[in-house]
Amino acid sequence: MIGQDTACCPGLASAPLDEDQAAELAKVFKALGDPVRLRLLSMIASRGEGGEVCVCELTPAFDLSQPTISHHLKLLRQAGLIDCERRGTWVYYWVLPAALDRLAVFLKAPTAVEALA
Amino acid sequence: MIGQDTACCPGLASAPLDEDQAAELAKVFKALGDPVRLRLLSMIASRGEGGEVCVCELTPAFDLSQPTISHHLKLLRQAGLIDCERRGTWVYYWVLPAALDRLAVFLKAPTAVEALA
Repeated sequence: MIGQDTACCPGLASAPLDEDQAAELAKVFKALGDPVRLRLLSMIASRGEGGEVCVCELTPAFDLSQPTISHHLKLLRQAGLIDCERRGTWVYYWVLPAALDRLAVFLKAPTAVEALA
Repeated sequence: MIGQDTACCPGLASAPLDEDQAAELAKVFKALGDPVRLRLLSMIASRGEGGEVCVCELTPAFDLSQPTISHHLKLLRQAGLIDCERRGTWVYYWVLPAALDRLAVFLKAPTAVEALA
């Protein structure tokens, strides 16, 4: 599981990544490298911080089976981008904003502060 | 080719992506979803804006053949993240910072400005 540790990696442009850092980050970007998963993530994220979405609201937006959608959601969860909880019949999903922010910071040009650290 | 158009997509959290936006962005994230490509990109990006790297400096950092490295560089180029130019024997690579910034903006929480747009 990734996403809790926001201090994993230097910015992309601040120093070459080592093999471990690259392997860890590649897993997260790979999870984002699929149109269905990107759409699922944006549907969940657009509920805003603290918002959540029932899987029963996600599935009808796609021409895919429930198990396929669940599989894509599992990959997003394993990448540390979302989390979920079962309540009764349904599973509810929400984003982990720190994981998204960490990727955004990683992709941005290095700041003077990072250069000093 | 992606990366020139920085106004393609709303922020991840500002509205659900449509299918075309998701397909376009997924290609870029897929290019990032590999440890060798992430290391190559960070080696190129850490030269700073306007900096460039000869492929002859990239290959020795990996236990991979020159054609394999060239293939990974081609995928990064097709995703609009880097560009290159041949000069004599060697090809020189540089990052396209606007493409990276665009991804960073996409992943960040929506700002008040975006909400008004």
